[in-house]
Amino acid sequence: MSSDTPPFQTIAIVGLGLIGGSVALAVRERWPSVRVAAVDHPSVLAHAAGSGAIDRAVQRIAELGGTDLLLLAAPVEQNVGLLREASAHLNPDAVMSDVGGTKRGIVRAAAALPPATVFVGGHPIGGAERGGFSFARADLFRGRPWVFTPDQSAPAHAVERLFAFASGLGARPSTMDAGEHDRLMAFLSHLPQLTASVLMEIVGEAAAADGLRLAGRGLVDTTRLASSPADIWRDVCASNADVIGVALDALIARLTELRGNLGQGDVVEAVFVNAARWRAELMKGRE
Amino acid sequence: MSSDTPPFQTIAIVGLGLIGGSVALAVRERWPSVRVAAVDHPSVLAHAAGSGAIDRAVQRIAELGGTDLLLLAAPVEQNVGLLREASAHLNPDAVMSDVGGTKRGIVRAAAALPPATVFVGGHPIGGAERGGFSFARADLFRGRPWVFTPDQSAPAHAVERLFAFASGLGARPSTMDAGEHDRLMAFLSHLPQLTASVLMEIVGEAAAADGLRLAGRGLVDTTRLASSPADIWRDVCASNADVIGVALDALIARLTELRGNLGQGDVVEAVFVNAARWRAELMKGRE
Repeated sequence: MSSDTPPFQTIAIVGLGLIGGSVALAVRERWPSVRVAAVDHPSVLAHAAGSGAIDRAVQRIAELGGTDLLLLAAPVEQNVGLLREASAHLNPDAVMSDVGGTKRGIVRAAAALPPATVFVGGHPIGGAERGGFSFARADLFRGRPWVFTPDQSAPAHAVERLFAFASGLGARPSTMDAGEHDRLMAFLSHLPQLTASVLMEIVGEAAAADGLRLAGRGLVDTTRLASSPADIWRDVCASNADVIGVALDALIARLTELRGNLGQGDVVEAVFVNAARWRAELMKGRE
Repeated sequence: MSSDTPPFQTIAIVGLGLIGGSVALAVRERWPSVRVAAVDHPSVLAHAAGSGAIDRAVQRIAELGGTDLLLLAAPVEQNVGLLREASAHLNPDAVMSDVGGTKRGIVRAAAALPPATVFVGGHPIGGAERGGFSFARADLFRGRPWVFTPDQSAPAHAVERLFAFASGLGARPSTMDAGEHDRLMAFLSHLPQLTASVLMEIVGEAAAADGLRLAGRGLVDTTRLASSPADIWRDVCASNADVIGVALDALIARLTELRGNLGQGDVVEAVFVNAARWRAELMKGRE
Protein backbone atom coordinates (compact mmCIF):
# COMPACT_ATOMS: atom_id res chain seq x y z
CA MET A 1 0.00 0.00 0.00
CA SER A 2 1.61 3.30 -1.00
CA SER A 3 1.53 6.05 1.53
CA ASP A 4 -1.00 7.90 -0.60
CA THR A 5 -3.43 5.01 -0.86
CA PRO A 6 -6.02 5.37 1.89
CA PRO A 7 -6.27 2.23 4.05
CA PHE A 8 -10.08 2.51 3.85
CA GLN A 9 -12.08 3.89 0.90
CA THR A 10 -15.25 4.52 2.87
CA ILE A 11 -15.57 5.50 6.50
CA ALA A 12 -18.59 5.80 8.76
CA ILE A 13 -18.32 7.73 12.01
CA VAL A 14 -21.00 7.24 14.64
CA GLY A 15 -20.96 10.37 16.80
CA LEU A 16 -19.49 13.65 15.53
CA GLY A 17 -18.16 15.06 18.78
CA LEU A 18 -14.65 16.39 19.31
CA ILE A 19 -12.96 13.13 18.34
CA GLY A 20 -15.37 11.89 15.67
CA GLY A 21 -15.52 15.35 14.11
CA SER A 22 -11.74 15.70 14.17
CA VAL A 23 -11.38 12.31 12.44
CA ALA A 24 -13.74 13.51 9.71
CA LEU A 25 -11.81 16.75 9.22
CA ALA A 26 -8.43 15.00 9.30
CA VAL A 27 -9.51 12.33 6.79
CA ARG A 28 -10.85 15.00 4.45
CA GLU A 29 -7.51 16.80 4.61
CA ARG A 30 -5.33 13.67 4.27
CA TRP A 31 -7.31 11.59 1.77
CA PRO A 32 -9.79 13.79 -0.10
CA SER A 33 -11.06 10.79 -2.11
CA VAL A 34 -12.32 8.88 0.93
CA ARG A 35 -16.09 9.04 1.40
CA VAL A 36 -17.09 9.93 4.95
CA ALA A 37 -20.53 9.14 6.31
CA ALA A 38 -21.65 10.20 9.77
CA VAL A 39 -24.44 9.48 12.24
CA ASP A 40 -25.52 12.10 14.77
CA HIS A 41 -28.33 14.51 15.63
CA PRO A 42 -29.61 16.71 12.76
CA SER A 43 -28.12 19.94 14.13
CA VAL A 44 -24.63 18.44 14.45
CA LEU A 45 -24.91 16.87 11.00
CA ALA A 46 -25.94 20.20 9.47
CA HIS A 47 -22.92 21.89 11.03
CA ALA A 48 -20.55 19.15 9.83
CA ALA A 49 -22.02 19.01 6.33
CA GLY A 50 -21.83 22.79 6.08
CA SER A 51 -18.13 22.72 6.93
CA GLY A 52 -17.50 20.12 4.23
CA ALA A 53 -16.31 17.52 6.75
CA ILE A 54 -18.66 14.74 5.65
CA ASP A 55 -20.20 13.38 2.45
CA ARG A 56 -23.25 11.68 3.88
CA ALA A 57 -25.28 12.56 6.94
CA VAL A 58 -27.75 10.13 8.46
CA GLN A 59 -29.63 10.18 11.72
CA ARG A 60 -29.80 6.43 12.26
CA ILE A 61 -27.23 3.69 11.89
CA ALA A 62 -29.83 1.69 9.93
CA GLU A 63 -29.45 4.18 7.06
CA LEU A 64 -25.68 3.89 6.84
CA GLY A 65 -25.20 1.19 4.22
CA GLY A 66 -21.86 -0.64 3.95
CA THR A 67 -18.51 0.83 4.94
CA ASP A 68 -14.83 -0.18 5.05
CA LEU A 69 -14.15 1.38 8.46
CA LEU A 70 -16.84 1.91 11.03
CA LEU A 71 -15.72 4.11 13.91
CA LEU A 72 -17.83 4.32 17.05
CA ALA A 73 -17.25 7.79 18.49
CA ALA A 74 -20.15 8.30 20.89
CA PRO A 75 -19.64 8.21 24.70
CA VAL A 76 -18.24 4.85 25.88
CA GLU A 77 -21.44 3.18 27.10
CA GLN A 78 -23.33 4.20 23.97
CA ASN A 79 -20.59 2.71 21.80
CA VAL A 80 -21.02 -0.61 23.59
CA GLY A 81 -24.78 -0.44 23.04
CA LEU A 82 -24.35 0.32 19.32
CA LEU A 83 -21.81 -2.44 18.58
CA ARG A 84 -24.21 -5.10 17.31
CA GLU A 85 -26.36 -2.79 15.22
CA ALA A 86 -23.31 -1.12 13.69
CA SER A 87 -21.71 -4.47 12.83
CA ALA A 88 -24.49 -5.04 10.27
CA HIS A 89 -23.06 -2.29 8.08
CA LEU A 90 -19.59 -3.62 7.43
CA ASN A 91 -18.38 -4.39 3.92
CA PRO A 92 -16.39 -7.61 3.40
CA ASP A 93 -12.92 -7.12 4.98
CA ALA A 94 -14.21 -4.10 6.87
CA VAL A 95 -12.87 -3.13 10.28
CA MET A 96 -14.82 -1.74 13.20
CA SER A 97 -13.08 0.34 15.84
CA ASP A 98 -13.96 2.93 18.46
CA VAL A 99 -12.32 5.96 20.04
CA GLY A 100 -13.50 5.60 23.64
CA GLY A 101 -11.31 6.39 26.62
CA THR A 102 -11.81 2.96 28.26
CA LYS A 103 -11.34 -0.33 26.47
CA ARG A 104 -12.13 -3.43 28.55
CA GLY A 105 -15.92 -3.10 28.32
CA ILE A 106 -16.17 -2.67 24.56
CA VAL A 107 -13.52 -5.31 23.81
CA ARG A 108 -15.46 -7.76 26.00
CA ALA A 109 -18.76 -6.87 24.32
CA ALA A 110 -17.22 -7.16 20.84
CA ALA A 111 -16.08 -10.70 21.61
CA ALA A 112 -19.76 -11.70 21.57
CA LEU A 113 -20.28 -10.48 17.98
CA PRO A 114 -20.40 -12.95 15.06
CA PRO A 115 -16.87 -14.34 14.45
CA ALA A 116 -16.61 -12.71 11.02
CA THR A 117 -16.87 -9.24 12.55
CA VAL A 118 -13.48 -7.65 13.00
CA PHE A 119 -13.37 -5.24 15.95
CA VAL A 120 -10.21 -3.59 17.29
CA GLY A 121 -10.63 -1.12 20.11
CA GLY A 122 -8.81 2.20 19.78
CA HIS A 123 -8.09 5.31 21.79
CA PRO A 124 -6.64 8.43 20.18
CA ILE A 125 -5.06 10.31 23.08
CA GLY A 126 -5.38 13.92 22.21
CA GLY A 127 -8.14 15.73 23.80
CA ALA A 128 -9.02 19.28 24.38
CA GLU A 129 -10.95 20.81 27.23
CA ARG A 130 -14.19 21.19 25.26
CA GLY A 131 -16.27 18.51 23.64
CA GLY A 132 -18.44 18.77 20.55
CA PHE A 133 -17.98 19.20 16.83
CA SER A 134 -17.45 22.95 17.23
CA PHE A 135 -14.05 22.24 18.75
CA ALA A 136 -13.03 19.55 16.25
CA ARG A 137 -9.84 20.18 14.28
CA ALA A 138 -7.97 18.32 11.56
CA ASP A 139 -4.70 18.45 13.53
CA LEU A 140 -6.07 17.05 16.80
CA PHE A 141 -4.13 13.78 16.42
CA ARG A 142 -0.85 15.18 15.12
CA GLY A 143 2.07 13.85 17.11
CA ARG A 144 -0.26 12.25 19.68
CA PRO A 145 -0.47 8.57 20.65
CA TRP A 146 -3.29 6.43 19.27
CA VAL A 147 -3.48 3.19 21.25
CA PHE A 148 -5.17 0.10 19.79
CA THR A 149 -6.16 -2.84 21.99
CA PRO A 150 -6.54 -5.87 19.69
CA ASP A 151 -7.53 -9.10 21.42
CA GLN A 152 -6.27 -12.51 20.28
CA SER A 153 -8.98 -12.80 17.60
CA ALA A 154 -7.97 -9.60 15.80
CA PRO A 155 -6.34 -10.30 12.40
CA ALA A 156 -2.92 -8.71 11.97
CA HIS A 157 -3.93 -7.04 8.70
CA ALA A 158 -6.80 -5.21 10.43
CA VAL A 159 -4.38 -3.78 12.99
CA GLU A 160 -1.99 -2.85 10.18
CA ARG A 161 -4.71 -0.95 8.34
CA LEU A 162 -5.71 0.89 11.52
CA PHE A 163 -2.03 1.76 12.10
CA ALA A 164 -1.86 3.17 8.54
CA PHE A 165 -5.06 5.09 9.19
CA ALA A 166 -3.87 6.60 12.49
CA SER A 167 -0.41 7.37 11.03
CA GLY A 168 -2.05 9.06 8.08
CA LEU A 169 -3.87 11.40 10.43
CA GLY A 170 -0.53 12.27 12.07
CA ALA A 171 -0.85 10.09 15.18
CA ARG A 172 1.68 7.63 16.64
CA PRO A 173 -0.11 4.25 16.78
CA SER A 174 0.75 1.50 19.24
CA THR A 175 -0.91 -1.54 20.75
CA MET A 176 -1.59 -2.42 24.35
CA ASP A 177 -3.61 -4.93 26.32
CA ALA A 178 -7.08 -3.48 27.08
CA GLY A 179 -6.69 -4.07 30.81
CA GLU A 180 -3.28 -2.39 30.94
CA HIS A 181 -4.69 0.48 28.87
CA ASP A 182 -7.53 1.03 31.31
CA ARG A 183 -5.28 0.88 34.36
CA LEU A 184 -2.80 3.31 32.84
CA MET A 185 -5.51 5.72 31.68
CA ALA A 186 -7.09 5.70 35.14
CA PHE A 187 -3.89 7.41 36.29
CA LEU A 188 -2.82 9.37 33.19
CA SER A 189 -6.20 10.71 32.18
CA HIS A 190 -9.13 9.90 34.45
CA LEU A 191 -7.48 10.83 37.76
CA PRO A 192 -6.25 14.25 36.49
CA GLN A 193 -9.70 14.95 35.05
CA LEU A 194 -11.57 14.08 38.24
CA THR A 195 -9.02 15.91 40.37
CA ALA A 196 -9.25 19.06 38.25
CA SER A 197 -13.06 19.00 38.41
CA VAL A 198 -13.30 18.39 42.16
CA LEU A 199 -10.63 21.04 42.78
CA MET A 200 -12.52 23.62 40.71
CA GLU A 201 -15.76 22.79 42.52
CA ILE A 202 -14.19 23.12 45.99
CA VAL A 203 -12.27 26.30 45.17
CA GLY A 204 -15.28 27.90 43.48
CA GLU A 205 -17.54 27.21 46.43
CA ALA A 206 -15.01 28.54 48.95
CA ALA A 207 -13.83 31.62 47.04
CA ALA A 208 -17.05 32.52 45.19
CA ALA A 209 -17.06 34.80 42.16
CA ASP A 210 -15.35 37.76 43.90
CA GLY A 211 -12.57 35.60 45.26
CA LEU A 212 -11.92 33.91 41.92
CA ARG A 213 -10.90 37.26 40.47
CA LEU A 214 -7.79 37.08 42.68
CA ALA A 215 -6.75 33.69 41.35
CA GLY A 216 -3.40 33.42 39.62
CA ARG A 217 -2.39 31.43 36.58
CA GLY A 218 -1.77 28.36 38.72
CA LEU A 219 -5.46 27.76 39.38
CA VAL A 220 -6.32 28.58 35.77
CA ASP A 221 -3.94 25.92 34.43
CA THR A 222 -4.65 23.32 37.08
CA THR A 223 -8.39 23.45 36.38
CA ARG A 224 -8.34 23.71 32.59
CA LEU A 225 -9.96 20.28 32.34
CA ALA A 226 -12.83 21.37 34.58
CA SER A 227 -14.97 22.40 31.61
CA SER A 228 -15.02 18.85 30.25
CA PRO A 229 -18.48 17.51 29.38
CA ALA A 230 -20.26 15.54 32.11
CA ASP A 231 -21.88 12.94 29.83
CA ILE A 232 -18.59 11.60 28.48
CA TRP A 233 -17.06 11.39 31.93
CA ARG A 234 -20.06 9.76 33.56
CA ASP A 235 -19.52 6.91 31.10
CA VAL A 236 -15.76 6.78 31.59
CA CYS A 237 -16.17 6.62 35.38
CA ALA A 238 -18.80 3.89 35.19
CA SER A 239 -16.85 1.78 32.71
CA ASN A 240 -13.53 2.07 34.56
CA ALA A 241 -14.76 2.44 38.15
CA ASP A 242 -12.56 -0.30 39.62
CA VAL A 243 -9.19 1.07 38.52
CA ILE A 244 -10.22 4.72 38.87
CA GLY A 245 -11.12 3.79 42.44
CA VAL A 246 -7.59 2.48 42.99
CA ALA A 247 -6.13 5.69 41.57
CA LEU A 248 -8.40 7.89 43.71
CA ASP A 249 -7.51 5.85 46.79
CA ALA A 250 -3.81 6.49 46.18
CA LEU A 251 -4.40 10.22 45.72
CA ILE A 252 -6.64 10.51 48.78
CA ALA A 253 -4.15 8.58 50.93
CA ARG A 254 -1.26 10.86 49.98
CA LEU A 255 -3.37 14.03 50.39
CA THR A 256 -4.39 12.78 53.84
CA GLU A 257 -0.77 12.12 54.79
CA LEU A 258 0.21 15.59 53.61
CA ARG A 259 -2.73 17.14 55.47
CA GLY A 260 -1.50 15.61 58.73
CA ASN A 261 2.03 16.92 58.22
CA LEU A 262 1.62 20.46 56.91
CA GLY A 263 3.52 21.98 59.82
CA GLN A 264 6.48 19.61 59.80
CA GLY A 265 7.92 19.90 56.33
CA ASP A 266 9.35 16.45 55.64
CA VAL A 267 6.26 15.18 53.84
CA VAL A 268 5.80 18.51 52.06
CA GLU A 269 9.42 18.36 50.93
CA ALA A 270 9.10 14.74 49.76
CA VAL A 271 5.94 15.48 47.77
CA PHE A 272 7.53 18.46 46.03
CA VAL A 273 10.81 16.71 45.27
CA ASN A 274 9.05 13.63 43.85
CA ALA A 275 6.55 15.74 41.94
CA ALA A 276 9.25 17.90 40.34
CA ARG A 277 11.16 14.78 39.28
CA TRP A 278 8.10 13.17 37.66
CA ARG A 279 7.09 16.46 36.08
CA ALA A 280 10.52 16.68 34.43
CA GLU A 281 10.06 13.10 33.20
CA LEU A 282 6.58 13.95 31.84
CA MET A 283 7.92 16.94 29.93
CA LYS A 284 10.83 15.10 28.27
CA GLY A 285 10.56 15.58 24.53
CA ARG A 286 7.53 17.88 24.82
CA GLU A 287 9.11 21.28 25.24
CA MET B 1 2.77 62.92 42.98
CA SER B 2 2.87 62.84 39.18
CA SER B 3 2.64 59.46 37.53
CA ASP B 4 6.30 59.72 36.56
CA THR B 5 7.58 60.46 40.04
CA PRO B 6 8.60 57.18 41.65
CA PRO B 7 6.91 56.64 45.02
CA PHE B 8 10.28 55.54 46.43
CA GLN B 9 13.72 56.86 45.35
CA THR B 10 15.67 53.92 46.79
CA ILE B 11 14.59 50.33 47.10
CA ALA B 12 16.19 47.37 48.82
CA ILE B 13 15.09 43.88 47.94
CA VAL B 14 16.00 41.03 50.28
CA GLY B 15 15.90 37.87 48.19
CA LEU B 16 16.24 37.97 44.40
CA GLY B 17 14.07 35.00 43.49
CA LEU B 18 11.31 35.03 40.92
CA ILE B 19 9.33 37.78 42.67
CA GLY B 20 12.19 39.87 44.07
CA GLY B 21 14.06 39.63 40.79
CA SER B 22 10.99 40.59 38.80
CA VAL B 23 10.43 43.61 41.04
CA ALA B 24 14.01 44.71 40.34
CA LEU B 25 13.58 44.30 36.58
CA ALA B 26 10.19 46.02 36.57
CA VAL B 27 11.42 48.97 38.65
CA ARG B 28 14.40 49.40 36.33
CA GLU B 29 12.06 49.50 33.34
CA ARG B 30 9.45 51.79 34.92
CA TRP B 31 11.61 54.22 36.93
CA PRO B 32 15.21 54.12 35.65
CA SER B 33 16.28 56.74 38.21
CA VAL B 34 15.39 54.57 41.23
CA ARG B 35 18.38 52.98 42.94
CA VAL B 36 17.90 49.29 43.58
CA ALA B 37 19.94 47.43 46.20
CA ALA B 38 19.65 43.70 46.73
CA VAL B 39 20.65 41.07 49.29
CA ASP B 40 21.20 37.46 48.24
CA HIS B 41 23.88 34.84 47.70
CA PRO B 42 26.91 35.93 45.62
CA SER B 43 26.00 33.81 42.56
CA VAL B 44 22.50 35.26 42.37
CA LEU B 45 23.81 38.78 42.87
CA ALA B 46 26.36 38.33 40.11
CA HIS B 47 23.64 37.19 37.73
CA ALA B 48 21.37 40.11 38.68
CA ALA B 49 24.14 42.69 38.49
CA GLY B 50 25.21 41.32 35.14
CA SER B 51 21.71 41.74 33.75
CA GLY B 52 21.63 45.35 34.96
CA ALA B 53 18.71 44.71 37.29
CA ILE B 54 20.35 46.13 40.41
CA ASP B 55 22.68 48.99 41.39
CA ARG B 56 24.08 47.58 44.62
CA ALA B 57 24.67 43.99 45.60
CA VAL B 58 25.33 43.00 49.20
CA GLN B 59 25.44 39.64 50.89
CA ARG B 60 24.22 40.75 54.30
CA ILE B 61 21.40 43.03 55.37
CA ALA B 62 23.86 44.79 57.70
CA GLU B 63 25.61 46.26 54.65
CA LEU B 64 22.44 47.70 53.14
CA GLY B 65 22.42 51.25 54.49
CA GLY B 66 19.19 53.28 54.44
CA THR B 67 16.37 52.80 51.96
CA ASP B 68 12.92 54.25 51.20
CA LEU B 69 11.28 50.90 50.47
CA LEU B 70 12.53 47.66 51.95
CA LEU B 71 10.95 44.61 50.35
CA LEU B 72 11.36 41.21 51.99
CA ALA B 73 11.26 38.66 49.17
CA ALA B 74 12.77 35.53 50.72
CA PRO B 75 10.59 32.50 51.61
CA VAL B 76 7.88 33.37 54.15
CA GLU B 77 9.51 32.11 57.35
CA GLN B 78 12.82 33.74 56.48
CA ASN B 79 11.06 37.06 55.91
CA VAL B 80 9.60 36.84 59.42
CA GLY B 81 13.05 36.11 60.81
CA LEU B 82 14.61 39.07 58.95
CA LEU B 83 11.98 41.66 59.97
CA ARG B 84 13.77 43.16 62.95
CA GLU B 85 17.23 43.30 61.40
CA ALA B 86 15.85 44.78 58.18
CA SER B 87 13.91 47.44 60.07
CA ALA B 88 17.21 49.05 61.11
CA HIS B 89 17.84 50.13 57.51
CA LEU B 90 14.79 52.28 56.91
CA ASN B 91 15.14 55.97 56.05
CA PRO B 92 12.74 58.38 57.77
CA ASP B 93 9.25 57.89 56.21
CA ALA B 94 10.39 54.61 54.72
CA VAL B 95 8.03 51.70 54.24
CA MET B 96 8.76 48.03 54.73
CA SER B 97 6.73 45.40 52.91
CA ASP B 98 7.05 41.79 51.81
CA VAL B 99 5.87 39.63 48.93
CA GLY B 100 5.12 36.38 50.77
CA GLY B 101 2.18 34.16 49.92
CA THR B 102 0.83 34.11 53.51
CA LYS B 103 0.24 37.20 55.60
CA ARG B 104 -0.96 36.52 59.17
CA GLY B 105 2.42 35.46 60.51
CA ILE B 106 4.47 38.37 59.24
CA VAL B 107 1.79 40.94 60.08
CA ARG B 108 1.68 39.57 63.64
CA ALA B 109 5.48 39.63 63.91
CA ALA B 110 5.69 43.15 62.50
CA ALA B 111 3.31 44.39 65.21
CA ALA B 112 6.11 43.75 67.71
CA LEU B 113 8.55 46.09 65.93
CA PRO B 114 9.23 49.60 67.30
CA PRO B 115 6.13 51.78 66.71
CA ALA B 116 7.95 54.08 64.28
CA THR B 117 8.52 51.21 61.86
CA VAL B 118 5.95 51.15 59.09
CA PHE B 119 5.24 47.65 57.81
CA VAL B 120 2.48 46.76 55.35
CA GLY B 121 2.29 43.13 54.20
CA GLY B 122 1.90 42.55 50.49
CA HIS B 123 1.34 39.71 48.06
CA PRO B 124 1.78 40.16 44.31
CA ILE B 125 -0.31 37.38 42.80
CA GLY B 126 1.44 36.45 39.62
CA GLY B 127 3.58 33.46 39.79
CA ALA B 128 5.15 31.17 37.33
CA GLU B 129 5.95 27.51 37.68
CA ARG B 130 9.66 28.03 38.28
CA GLY B 131 11.34 29.96 41.04
CA GLY B 132 14.63 31.81 40.98
CA PHE B 133 16.08 34.92 39.37
CA SER B 134 16.58 33.11 36.05
CA PHE B 135 12.81 33.15 35.54
CA ALA B 136 12.27 36.74 36.68
CA ARG B 137 10.65 39.11 34.17
CA ALA B 138 9.77 42.80 34.17
CA ASP B 139 6.18 42.04 33.11
CA LEU B 140 5.43 39.47 35.81
CA PHE B 141 2.99 41.78 37.62
CA ARG B 142 1.23 43.27 34.60
CA GLY B 143 -2.53 43.05 34.96
CA ARG B 144 -2.21 40.84 38.05
CA PRO B 145 -3.57 41.55 41.54
CA TRP B 146 -1.22 42.80 44.27
CA VAL B 147 -2.92 42.47 47.63
CA PHE B 148 -1.78 44.54 50.63
CA THR B 149 -2.82 43.65 54.16
CA PRO B 150 -2.39 46.79 56.29
CA ASP B 151 -3.31 46.41 59.95
CA GLN B 152 -4.87 49.24 61.97
CA SER B 153 -1.50 50.83 62.71
CA ALA B 154 -0.54 51.26 59.04
CA PRO B 155 -0.58 54.94 57.97
CA ALA B 156 -2.79 55.66 54.96
CA HIS B 157 0.06 57.42 53.11
CA ALA B 158 2.22 54.29 53.31
CA VAL B 159 -0.53 52.23 51.71
CA GLU B 160 -0.98 54.94 49.06
CA ARG B 161 2.71 54.85 48.17
CA LEU B 162 2.66 51.05 47.94
CA PHE B 163 -0.42 51.29 45.70
CA ALA B 164 1.45 53.75 43.45
CA PHE B 165 4.43 51.40 43.44
CA ALA B 166 2.38 48.33 42.51
CA SER B 167 0.37 50.25 39.90
CA GLY B 168 3.60 51.56 38.41
CA LEU B 169 4.75 47.98 37.88
CA GLY B 170 1.48 47.21 36.09
CA ALA B 171 -0.32 45.42 38.93
CA ARG B 172 -3.84 46.01 40.27
CA PRO B 173 -3.40 46.82 43.99
CA SER B 174 -6.08 46.18 46.61
CA THR B 175 -6.27 45.72 50.37
CA MET B 176 -7.61 42.83 52.39
CA ASP B 177 -7.55 41.61 55.97
CA ALA B 178 -4.54 39.32 56.53
CA GLY B 179 -6.75 36.52 57.86
CA GLU B 180 -9.16 36.72 54.94
CA HIS B 181 -6.18 36.79 52.55
CA ASP B 182 -4.73 33.63 54.04
CA ARG B 183 -8.05 31.79 54.00
CA LEU B 184 -8.71 32.78 50.39
CA MET B 185 -5.18 31.90 49.25
CA ALA B 186 -5.43 28.50 50.93
CA PHE B 187 -8.12 27.74 48.35
CA LEU B 188 -7.03 29.85 45.35
CA SER B 189 -3.32 29.11 45.47
CA HIS B 190 -2.14 26.63 48.10
CA LEU B 191 -4.74 23.93 47.46
CA PRO B 192 -4.16 23.90 43.66
CA GLN B 193 -0.40 23.76 44.23
CA LEU B 194 -0.54 20.87 46.68
CA THR B 195 -3.09 19.05 44.55
CA ALA B 196 -0.99 19.40 41.40
CA SER B 197 2.12 18.16 43.20
CA VAL B 198 0.44 15.16 44.87
CA LEU B 199 -1.29 14.28 41.58
CA MET B 200 2.02 14.36 39.69
CA GLU B 201 3.67 12.21 42.35
CA ILE B 202 0.87 9.58 42.31
CA VAL B 203 0.60 9.48 38.51
CA GLY B 204 4.37 9.32 38.04
CA GLU B 205 4.73 6.43 40.47
CA ALA B 206 1.87 4.47 38.88
CA ALA B 207 2.67 5.12 35.21
CA ALA B 208 6.47 5.33 35.40
CA ALA B 209 8.54 6.89 32.62
CA ASP B 210 7.22 4.67 29.83
CA GLY B 211 3.61 5.28 30.77
CA LEU B 212 4.06 9.04 31.00
CA ARG B 213 4.88 9.12 27.30
CA LEU B 214 1.21 8.26 26.64
CA ALA B 215 -0.09 11.17 28.69
CA GLY B 216 -2.20 13.78 26.93
CA ARG B 217 -2.29 17.52 27.33
CA GLY B 218 -4.69 17.20 30.25
CA LEU B 219 -2.05 15.81 32.61
CA VAL B 220 0.53 18.27 31.32
CA ASP B 221 -1.67 21.28 32.13
CA THR B 222 -3.04 19.93 35.39
CA THR B 223 0.45 19.34 36.77
CA ARG B 224 2.20 22.47 35.48
CA LEU B 225 2.64 23.67 39.08
CA ALA B 226 4.38 20.44 40.05
CA SER B 227 7.82 21.88 39.33
CA SER B 228 7.40 24.57 42.00
CA PRO B 229 10.30 24.84 44.45
CA ALA B 230 9.98 22.83 47.68
CA ASP B 231 11.56 25.40 49.99
CA ILE B 232 9.01 28.12 49.28
CA TRP B 233 6.10 25.76 49.71
CA ARG B 234 7.39 24.18 52.90
CA ASP B 235 7.20 27.66 54.41
CA VAL B 236 3.79 28.43 52.94
CA CYS B 237 2.38 25.15 54.30
CA ALA B 238 3.85 25.71 57.76
CA SER B 239 2.68 29.32 57.99
CA ASN B 240 -0.85 28.62 56.76
CA ALA B 241 -1.33 25.05 57.98
CA ASP B 242 -4.66 25.65 59.73
CA VAL B 243 -6.57 27.01 56.74
CA ILE B 244 -4.78 24.81 54.19
CA GLY B 245 -5.91 21.91 56.37
CA VAL B 246 -9.52 23.08 56.04
CA ALA B 247 -9.14 23.33 52.27
CA LEU B 248 -7.53 19.87 52.01
CA ASP B 249 -10.29 18.41 54.18
CA ALA B 250 -12.92 19.76 51.80
CA LEU B 251 -11.10 18.36 48.78
CA ILE B 252 -10.51 14.96 50.38
CA ALA B 253 -14.15 14.72 51.48
CA ARG B 254 -15.46 15.41 47.99
CA LEU B 255 -12.94 13.05 46.35
CA THR B 256 -14.01 10.36 48.82
CA GLU B 257 -17.68 10.93 48.01
CA LEU B 258 -16.92 10.71 44.29
CA ARG B 259 -14.82 7.58 44.81
CA GLY B 260 -17.78 5.85 46.45
CA ASN B 261 -20.14 6.77 43.61
CA LEU B 262 -18.13 6.22 40.43
CA GLY B 263 -20.58 3.67 39.07
CA GLN B 264 -23.77 5.60 39.76
CA GLY B 265 -23.32 8.85 37.90
CA ASP B 266 -25.26 11.36 40.01
CA VAL B 267 -22.22 12.52 41.99
CA VAL B 268 -20.04 12.45 38.87
CA GLU B 269 -22.61 14.54 37.05
CA ALA B 270 -22.91 17.03 39.95
CA VAL B 271 -19.13 17.44 40.20
CA PHE B 272 -18.78 18.11 36.48
CA VAL B 273 -21.73 20.51 36.27
CA ASN B 274 -20.54 22.51 39.30
CA ALA B 275 -16.92 22.46 38.10
CA ALA B 276 -17.83 23.71 34.62
CA ARG B 277 -19.90 26.53 36.12
CA TRP B 278 -17.07 27.68 38.42
CA ARG B 279 -14.53 27.30 35.64
CA ALA B 280 -16.59 29.63 33.47
CA GLU B 281 -16.72 32.09 36.37
CA LEU B 282 -12.94 31.83 36.85
CA MET B 283 -12.31 32.55 33.18
CA LYS B 284 -14.54 35.64 32.98
CA GLY B 285 -12.48 38.52 31.65
CA ARG B 286 -9.38 36.36 31.16
CA GLU B 287 -9.87 35.00 27.67
